[in-house]
Amino acid sequence: MKIVLIGSTGHTNYVVEGLKDNYEDQIVGIAPGSETEEVDSLYQKLAKDYDIKKYNNYIEMLDQEKPDVAAVACHFGDHAQAAIEVLNRNINLFVEKPIATTLSKLAEVKAAYKKSEAKLAAMFGIRYKPWFLTAHKYIKEGAIGEVRLMNAQKSYRLGQREDFYKKRESYGGTIPWVGSHAIDWMQWLSGKDFKSVYASHSTKANKNHGELEVSALCHFDFEDEVAGSVNIDYLRPQNATSHDDDRIRIAGDKGVIEVLKEKVYLINDQIEGNRELPLLAKKEVFADFLNWVKGNGESMITAEESFRVTEAALQARRSADQKKLIHF
Amino acid sequence: MKIVLIGSTGHTNYVVEGLKDNYEDQIVGIAPGSETEEVDSLYQKLAKDYDIKKYNNYIEMLDQEKPDVAAVACHFGDHAQAAIEVLNRNINLFVEKPIATTLSKLAEVKAAYKKSEAKLAAMFGIRYKPWFLTAHKYIKEGAIGEVRLMNAQKSYRLGQREDFYKKRESYGGTIPWVGSHAIDWMQWLSGKDFKSVYASHSTKANKNHGELEVSALCHFDFEDEVAGSVNIDYLRPQNATSHDDDRIRIAGDKGVIEVLKEKVYLINDQIEGNRELPLLAKKEVFADFLNWVKGNGESMITAEESFRVTEAALQARRSADQKKLIHF
Repeated sequence: MKIVLIGSTGHTNYVVEGLKDNYEDQIVGIAPGSETEEVDSLYQKLAKDYDIKKYNNYIEMLDQEKPDVAAVACHFGDHAQAAIEVLNRNINLFVEKPIATTLSKLAEVKAAYKKSEAKLAAMFGIRYKPWFLTAHKYIKEGAIGEVRLMNAQKSYRLGQREDFYKKRESYGGTIPWVGSHAIDWMQWLSGKDFKSVYASHSTKANKNHGELEVSALCHFDFEDEVAGSVNIDYLRPQNATSHDDDRIRIAGDKGVIEVLKEKVYLINDQIEGNRELPLLAKKEVFADFLNWVKGNGESMITAEESFRVTEAALQARRSADQKKLIHF
Repeated sequence: MKIVLIGSTGHTNYVVEGLKDNYEDQIVGIAPGSETEEVDSLYQKLAKDYDIKKYNNYIEMLDQEKPDVAAVACHFGDHAQAAIEVLNRNINLFVEKPIATTLSKLAEVKAAYKKSEAKLAAMFGIRYKPWFLTAHKYIKEGAIGEVRLMNAQKSYRLGQREDFYKKRESYGGTIPWVGSHAIDWMQWLSGKDFKSVYASHSTKANKNHGELEVSALCHFDFEDEVAGSVNIDYLRPQNATSHDDDRIRIAGDKGVIEVLKEKVYLINDQIEGNRELPLLAKKEVFADFLNWVKGNGESMITAEESFRVTEAALQARRSADQKKLIHF
């Protein structure tokens, strides 16, 4: 398979890691996806392993290389336009979340996807971490019964972010960028669809990061009277033990499961006390996507989920902007 | 001081524990606060330590004993009426939360309080646990800077509850009964007042507990764009290691503090890694109230907070009932 990269900003490492020990698929080109984006350092790094060409224009790259797969990870406000160009050429698309930063642009990407025969998955790579795979397995096996209540957390260090993070137009907002992971976990782990959302966010205490929100809270109502919250912040101190502090706690009618500090805990009526579960091995999100493209089974992330979670994140952001409850 | 108990249902143990090693104050009477309430077993227990009289009617008890303090802890739907009778007699009132189970009844209690010279505190006794006292101390000392985002949890075992829990009229709802503790922590620890609430709750999976909600989620907006969630459930399995799993995590602009499993953790830029804080000693909520009544300093729980938290809990319940955003 011929693979190209549009952009060098988001989780391009998913692509690189997903190709480790893979000698049949090749990264053949890289181009910036956004006007002020610099791809040279990633190009230099990849040139050690791949016969790769650097382009200044991704349209030219797509038309010339005619790749099987394009991975889009540029400034977040430009994901959607690049995605549309990829899909219009029937090229399989591995795209950084959020797929789009406006609802109208999301509709355009959806339309392009429907017309194309390409496969599509968004980079919800945290699903593939051992602790999330483990939680998923136990929930699907019935360890907590029917899901009733979910609480997810995304907490990051802020540090000093690039300029494009400081504008809503190029960044898209903290709920879509950081929160969409946790929004994805909730629908993936529960199997329940979104019904409504109420959210809040604030740029206070953002240390000169312009329009970037450093705290946010989302309250989703799902089917079957299931509720779920996501709390999001960039308030983790610089000398915390890790960059992030991802969590989810899910209470069901037969038990409670929890991902906390990269471990998974389960309590239910079959278990005495609070049991730490043995972890599944991690998987590679891009390897999973490539297998799907090659016809070797399904990807764990579907196109429908990728669109739905993006929509949910953008509706949550709209709720927070407008301070109102939004029904899906 | 002469103390009477109206009811034997809620946290009457706060009164009993608060009087340990206290030989100057006496419990002189007990009467049911609700029609179907039984106080005999508590009476028998107290009669070993106190010269106490059992009444069938609390009005008669109040008028005959003319106590200095009445503690009200009957069926939750009857707190307000008993509170009004106590306040109308200028007797100091230590009252189980929620003070009232309807907003109109809450307004009546407030009016009675304003007319009286009595002191009043609601039984927000969890504040006095070592982990909450410790979190409070560090926050007030500036350990996390300005509070930006809060997430609190109340999780209980359901077990088999008395019949009065199964009716909204006598029980009042899970957000006021269980959730009001966590709602109290948020306003107490942040010092921020409530602006609006959106909430959900569900009776699904309540194991034949009628109208009792077993899961709930509240999203509060506070002053200064601070947001706070409370997730509440009765979904803790019977063989979990403890009855409850109280938590709060508060992110500020200078650090994050967390109460988790009866410990307190702090991260900020002065601390390497995740520091477990030394715990303060627990205090007795009723002893604190009695000291206030005697003129020896203030109570940690004010009447204003007791009313405000009750109001916030009832507005959250109304939001969940009506599925709409409510402004305070």
